[in-house]
Amino acid sequence: MSNQKYAIGVDFGTESGRAVLVNVATGQEVATAVHNYANGVIDEKLPGTDIHLEPEWALQDPNDYLEVFKKTIPAVIQQSKIDPSDVIGLGIDFTACSMMPTKKDGTPLCFLPEWRNNPHAWVKLWKHHAAQPEANKINETARKMGESWLNRYGGKISSEWFFSKTLQILDEAPEIYEAADRLLEAADWVVWQLTGVEKRNSCTAGYKAMWSKREGFPDDKFFAALDPHLEHVLDEKMSRKIYSLGEKAGGLTQQAAQWTGLKPGTAIAIANVDAHVSVPAVTVTEPGRMVMIMGTSICHMVLGTEERRVEGMCGVVEDGIIAGLYGFEAGQSGVGDIFAWFVDHCVPIEYHQEAEKRGIDLHQLLEEKASRLKPGEHGLLALDWWNGNRSILVDVDLSGLLIGATLATKAEDIYRALIEATAFGTRIIIEAFEKNGVAVNELVACGGLPEKNKMLMQIYADVTGREFKVSASKQAPALGSAMFGAVAAGKSHGGYDTIYEAAEKMAKLKDETYKPNWENKPIYDRLYAEYERLYSYFGRGENNVMKVLKRIRDEVKG
Amino acid sequence: MSNQKYAIGVDFGTESGRAVLVNVATGQEVATAVHNYANGVIDEKLPGTDIHLEPEWALQDPNDYLEVFKKTIPAVIQQSKIDPSDVIGLGIDFTACSMMPTKKDGTPLCFLPEWRNNPHAWVKLWKHHAAQPEANKINETARKMGESWLNRYGGKISSEWFFSKTLQILDEAPEIYEAADRLLEAADWVVWQLTGVEKRNSCTAGYKAMWSKREGFPDDKFFAALDPHLEHVLDEKMSRKIYSLGEKAGGLTQQAAQWTGLKPGTAIAIANVDAHVSVPAVTVTEPGRMVMIMGTSICHMVLGTEERRVEGMCGVVEDGIIAGLYGFEAGQSGVGDIFAWFVDHCVPIEYHQEAEKRGIDLHQLLEEKASRLKPGEHGLLALDWWNGNRSILVDVDLSGLLIGATLATKAEDIYRALIEATAFGTRIIIEAFEKNGVAVNELVACGGLPEKNKMLMQIYADVTGREFKVSASKQAPALGSAMFGAVAAGKSHGGYDTIYEAAEKMAKLKDETYKPNWENKPIYDRLYAEYERLYSYFGRGENNVMKVLKRIRDEVKG
Repeated sequence: MSNQKYAIGVDFGTESGRAVLVNVATGQEVATAVHNYANGVIDEKLPGTDIHLEPEWALQDPNDYLEVFKKTIPAVIQQSKIDPSDVIGLGIDFTACSMMPTKKDGTPLCFLPEWRNNPHAWVKLWKHHAAQPEANKINETARKMGESWLNRYGGKISSEWFFSKTLQILDEAPEIYEAADRLLEAADWVVWQLTGVEKRNSCTAGYKAMWSKREGFPDDKFFAALDPHLEHVLDEKMSRKIYSLGEKAGGLTQQAAQWTGLKPGTAIAIANVDAHVSVPAVTVTEPGRMVMIMGTSICHMVLGTEERRVEGMCGVVEDGIIAGLYGFEAGQSGVGDIFAWFVDHCVPIEYHQEAEKRGIDLHQLLEEKASRLKPGEHGLLALDWWNGNRSILVDVDLSGLLIGATLATKAEDIYRALIEATAFGTRIIIEAFEKNGVAVNELVACGGLPEKNKMLMQIYADVTGREFKVSASKQAPALGSAMFGAVAAGKSHGGYDTIYEAAEKMAKLKDETYKPNWENKPIYDRLYAEYERLYSYFGRGENNVMKVLKRIRDEVKG
Repeated sequence: MSNQKYAIGVDFGTESGRAVLVNVATGQEVATAVHNYANGVIDEKLPGTDIHLEPEWALQDPNDYLEVFKKTIPAVIQQSKIDPSDVIGLGIDFTACSMMPTKKDGTPLCFLPEWRNNPHAWVKLWKHHAAQPEANKINETARKMGESWLNRYGGKISSEWFFSKTLQILDEAPEIYEAADRLLEAADWVVWQLTGVEKRNSCTAGYKAMWSKREGFPDDKFFAALDPHLEHVLDEKMSRKIYSLGEKAGGLTQQAAQWTGLKPGTAIAIANVDAHVSVPAVTVTEPGRMVMIMGTSICHMVLGTEERRVEGMCGVVEDGIIAGLYGFEAGQSGVGDIFAWFVDHCVPIEYHQEAEKRGIDLHQLLEEKASRLKPGEHGLLALDWWNGNRSILVDVDLSGLLIGATLATKAEDIYRALIEATAFGTRIIIEAFEKNGVAVNELVACGGLPEKNKMLMQIYADVTGREFKVSASKQAPALGSAMFGAVAAGKSHGGYDTIYEAAEKMAKLKDETYKPNWENKPIYDRLYAEYERLYSYFGRGENNVMKVLKRIRDEVKG
């Protein structure tokens, strides 16, 4: 066993962090440990205070990230009983954009007593949605100034992204903006804590901060147009030097070696994002196969050899997923969330009783009942916009629609219609990519949904007419991070020189795949034609009733 | 007490018959008795056989109607302890069109052993929906032949109506058609059983059999065009002589006196229909006040002085509600039905638990929660077509739509949106009437819903901008029938000479009324504008997705 080498992937999620120790030669996941963040998602009041947060706020405590290293890495070493010196590399992935202000030495402002009571001193988590006015300003200014980078983001950047959050700090807490020597992604911050060096990754820079390999960041003049104080934000508080995925950030510091029990100098990879790091972890390192992270929402990623403009995508970034290729990202903002909403709010009591009696959950019961239906049998159609529409309409003010209900409509009918609607939503995205020259020949899934709902997977295969494969790993992000850890170490240290080689050895798919049922396809094609028409009618301004309803709601609520 | 006079109203419903004994001078309801039909709604197999019925069939057993007389009238006499000779008259109302074939003497074919096993020998209940192909044929033929009477029925007659059902008998059981000496409404049949004379009423003839006071029935040539065997149906099996509401059909026979305990010769009124008989029972005998029978569906009735063409109404009949006036009828095919569907299928388990704990039903709980919402606050809009649309689109293939759902949408939000949608549906009907010169200044409700849901009543008042009053009687149809019984007796026998006089003395409304809240109206006006637009888009052929979904469903089900 002593000639076996290992890499560790650390996946920083929304509620917890997870370390997975992986055999570099085989990809076998030897040990896993999870640490729940003590302060979790901070969305009511600042820890240890009575300072209440506004709606739409979501913060985190960077100390929770350090605790993940301190707790989970010793745990996986202990579980696996390996020699820490056989761990050749470590990679991390993070939610994004989760960003924070620090001092020059990396100390988060929220660690300092003078700033600790200011919410803007903390990490703004990816789902902090309070920077919409700033996002609007960025979009308007960019449109007015004809900024060409806007095209790389489907014509609109999100309130979740780096400069929306940065501008919110400047608008609402100029003293924090002033005190911040550095503004950076938490992803890069944790790598900095491990290595002692601040190196920023191409994935978050590209997808969340409008950077591109060929054009760099937007011009200082653009930032000045947003706010004169922002003009030199890049040179004053950020860095124009961006490191590509697969590079080594540095070696583990003495201090971090103490936290983790790993050897000082262990290779640490440049940071990555949870979704994007999963792509090679599900064997995808080439164009033509779309990776879908399927959970509460879906993130769609596909690789291409050229930059293409695709309507409503979240972004196209060269080196953003795999160095040397363009990474395209799109998304559906509500998927598993919608099914959960349905189960929480719309299932009759007999179903609860039946599920309880049989010891299964409501999703299983509904899947069982819904899978007895033939396509089209329920007579329903939905627009899957309960949480707005990300791709391809990029419109948070759209809302859900269900059509076709009769007095005979049952819960499983609606459940299936909602699943089908999300599959139609994915088909819209695939067709947008293909229309613009980005091939999508096959689908590869990871995340929670593929593990739970076979019917859903088959519906996606049928609706899209594409074979759908599933990750063998249930922790694809951590596996992907471990793969990048092995690449950071390099072949000379028992790892790999490229992510392609790492993917070949360490990434795996399940044998079972979902092939389209060609009998179902014609029915779904007809339903999809209706979906597309409603999509366009309600989504592209012909009938703005969804926005009118939200406007009235907001007025009435005052 | 011996100078008090009484009338009895017998209301034949879908599941039971009800007799109410009413004080003629005051309208006081002295006693009530209900008899549930032994054979109820026959929709699975013929009683005492293994003969299965097709879907959409709904039959009844005429013997159940006779049992109503035999059980309920002695019961109310006994309860009230009055002298039967103080009952001066009796009226009946019935569901319609509920029609049946009989021999010349009135014996139902289904009473005869040779026909008893043929489903077509039984009463086809109003909700027997298996004659749609025949209705289609009647509509097509009438359009082709330019039949002007079609305009009196909003351009389309229903599968529920008299000649649709008649034609179905001829199509599917010509031997029954042949054996039937008479084809008639069950309403007229029960009056025949009481009086020994066959006299047909103007309400069912007008609303269900295309008769009008001025033009009579359609021409024989029209019936011949439907089927040569049908050419002389009017003269062979029906009657061209139609009696107006308020007339006396005859006196109680010896045999019927034995059944009921009433005196032979007691005045019996010409038959009426449950909805229409309720109009004078809620004090309405003049134009301008719309009566709404609110239950699983809504029937809207309003009087006018001239015949007007109104889009999508169910019918306009001179003398059809009150002799001397035109009775306009419209309808919403799903109202309470939709709320019941929602409560049965879409309410989370915590609500069930809360309702149980508090000893209230789910409707009450949802009403309580929904009434805390301001208009527009839930951000939802629905099209109330779960059971198709009767007025003004006359289209059974339309289906329900809900728009505006988000992950924060709660059960009470949807519940309220469904109620609002039915109110918008009523407003569409009111506006169609007014656009065509039929005034609707005030609303008067009876039926189950007004008793149960104050929030609903207020929403209807707010949405329509009209004061909404409620029947004092919970059994308006039976009261109305008793009023017609008193009119059949006439003033000389202690009754009234006209229904106007009877209404003045015997009909009452509750003191509590629902006045529009003018603060809510502007919001509802904006929501109504969106409702109208969706109504038109999905209902008038611009987007036929609802029909496409039903077509696909039907194909898939095979």
